[in-house]
Amino acid sequence: MDYTKLSLEKHAEWKGKIELQPRMPLSNKNDLSVAYTPGVAAPCMEIHKDVSKSYDYTRRWNTVAVVTDGSAVLGLGDIGPEAGMPVMEGKCVLFKAFGDVDAIPLCIKTHDVDEIVRTVQLLSGSFGGVNLEDIAAPRCFEIENKLKECCDIPIFHDDQHGTAIVTAAGIINAMRLLGRKLEDQKCVVAGAGAAGIACTKLLMALGLKDVILCDSKGTIYEGREGLNWIKTEMAAISNRGMVKGDIANALKGADIFIGVSGPGTVTADMIRLMNEKPVVFAMANPIPEIMPELAKEAGAAVVGTGRSDCPNQINNTLVFPGLFRGVFDVRAKDINDEMKIAAAYALAGVITDEELAADRVIPSPFDSRVKEAVSKAVSEAAINSGTARI
Amino acid sequence: MDYTKLSLEKHAEWKGKIELQPRMPLSNKNDLSVAYTPGVAAPCMEIHKDVSKSYDYTRRWNTVAVVTDGSAVLGLGDIGPEAGMPVMEGKCVLFKAFGDVDAIPLCIKTHDVDEIVRTVQLLSGSFGGVNLEDIAAPRCFEIENKLKECCDIPIFHDDQHGTAIVTAAGIINAMRLLGRKLEDQKCVVAGAGAAGIACTKLLMALGLKDVILCDSKGTIYEGREGLNWIKTEMAAISNRGMVKGDIANALKGADIFIGVSGPGTVTADMIRLMNEKPVVFAMANPIPEIMPELAKEAGAAVVGTGRSDCPNQINNTLVFPGLFRGVFDVRAKDINDEMKIAAAYALAGVITDEELAADRVIPSPFDSRVKEAVSKAVSEAAINSGTARI
Repeated sequence: MDYTKLSLEKHAEWKGKIELQPRMPLSNKNDLSVAYTPGVAAPCMEIHKDVSKSYDYTRRWNTVAVVTDGSAVLGLGDIGPEAGMPVMEGKCVLFKAFGDVDAIPLCIKTHDVDEIVRTVQLLSGSFGGVNLEDIAAPRCFEIENKLKECCDIPIFHDDQHGTAIVTAAGIINAMRLLGRKLEDQKCVVAGAGAAGIACTKLLMALGLKDVILCDSKGTIYEGREGLNWIKTEMAAISNRGMVKGDIANALKGADIFIGVSGPGTVTADMIRLMNEKPVVFAMANPIPEIMPELAKEAGAAVVGTGRSDCPNQINNTLVFPGLFRGVFDVRAKDINDEMKIAAAYALAGVITDEELAADRVIPSPFDSRVKEAVSKAVSEAAINSGTARI
Repeated sequence: MDYTKLSLEKHAEWKGKIELQPRMPLSNKNDLSVAYTPGVAAPCMEIHKDVSKSYDYTRRWNTVAVVTDGSAVLGLGDIGPEAGMPVMEGKCVLFKAFGDVDAIPLCIKTHDVDEIVRTVQLLSGSFGGVNLEDIAAPRCFEIENKLKECCDIPIFHDDQHGTAIVTAAGIINAMRLLGRKLEDQKCVVAGAGAAGIACTKLLMALGLKDVILCDSKGTIYEGREGLNWIKTEMAAISNRGMVKGDIANALKGADIFIGVSGPGTVTADMIRLMNEKPVVFAMANPIPEIMPELAKEAGAAVVGTGRSDCPNQINNTLVFPGLFRGVFDVRAKDINDEMKIAAAYALAGVITDEELAADRVIPSPFDSRVKEAVSKAVSEAAINSGTARI
């Protein structure tokens, strides 16, 4: 279905998808004196004495900044900060609806890494966490790394880690369904941007050993000319067999395909080059690398996409609201690998043995079990890994 | 009444005075497809083609950033960005309650003028306007001027202009009550920070000719040593009689006293040096320059303060919500003198001839007529002065 016309009409009718609401009464002078002057001086001075009190007396404890530079919005490319706002507002709606998290969209008018980092750093005292969004690779990695260095609040790049966690959850359940072990699988990842690199890293943290990353020029291997710094880093830890050539070559004998690239990257014939009963997550949006029916006809045992109109929608919406809920519940100062892995297993675990099926390796975003499962696991992992502050 | 204990309890109970709310339903896959992917691509692309559409398809049209560096919060001084947040959240509550404006608090962790300017400029695509708040003078003037240069959205420093507008409204009504003309009055302003300078400028724009600004060292006059740049500018346009000495000396024969300094700046004896039936606005918060009873005993005909427990509360809350409502209603690109003057007259005009009295020269913040009167006047002035965009 084409949502263009309906979405434009609805957006014009809504006049913004989010708004700010007071959380207390304001109907007389006494209310004003307590919430504003002169009463407000008291919480101000308490926070001045101990800045951690900002989590008790203001909304900081529950507020995440959703930050973009508008450079990689959806599949639309570099459309600028103002044009990125409808997506950011949508994200903020999802944060509230699925995680009860207050999210504030901030679109920054520069592509300069240091300016973006400095802007977020200067604002970090107003927020409990930062969700980076739709920032082009490889800039996004640098921004995330620098922010983690200079801010004392958790930094999360959803296009990387949200995608990686939900993908990992799907793969965990695919392995569970097929009775295989991730350690024994051969995996090919198409797309070496934010999502592809984060998926590769997280699956490796979960036990995957044999993985080949591909970009538009083919497989990424150590010594390939013209690799940027992050691809060079990935080349050193993946594709240890030094497979060269195109994606078809990489897929020979592979068990898992993860697509975070674009439509038409793989064909049915290429799927037939894979091992028996392969797992195919073709997550390019809105048009997958290969349509699910084609992948199934070519032998795929489990197929996932990013589409809401197909089974197994591998969608970040399953992750970031519950994850930040869990982060905020224990005032975690970081979002580390332990927490990401815990989130992936918790999300996978929402699907019971009875529910588990080729067309159901991942829950729906409207599954009410998701928020609690993910947030609880993330909180616990934060406590166990020593990054929780309460 | 001391609100310290109650305010701390209430702030801890509220856990933040504001929160973000979705403005549309999100209960099934169809809602998600319209508000988020894939539907959201349509408004994104419309804005990409024409950035002014950001006012139609996102909340920008109704959203103001409330920005501080925490350097001059209430009378508490430089308490830092996190400690300033309870005041900023309170401000955001007032924006919504009294102006139906969505306000987002942003506390910036630097006192560097250019860094503050750059941060706000980089975020300006996410907002319809900027309300600067509690930034120390004279830095606040420089920040405001630079932002007006580099941003295409209205910039408003409330401590200057909000205070000036509400003060002007009170003075307009005091003149109306006493049957005097502002042109004929001699006025002394105590306090040469953001509020004092803006009050002086706005009252001069309204017709006041004879005005003397005082700081802690006495009257400000041309050639006085050690004046900063803004005081030098003010010395050139005020105190044309070159009155030197302390505030008592300045008050001799004055008709109006405007206090935006601190407690104890004027005494009853000093009020007695003024002309008959002077107007005394002693607005230092929470303790006025002189307590109202004392000023009245000394002969003051009209007394105003910043306190909610005294008559004639000269409170910015009467201005900024309605003013931004009026600005947003016509998408004004600037907040110019015409709009400020219109706001002052409109606010004064809320008080009918029947209501007008020495203890009622200004309405209460809870007077439901204020928002409409101020917003309508501001919108009209924006249209008439050519700064409205719709």
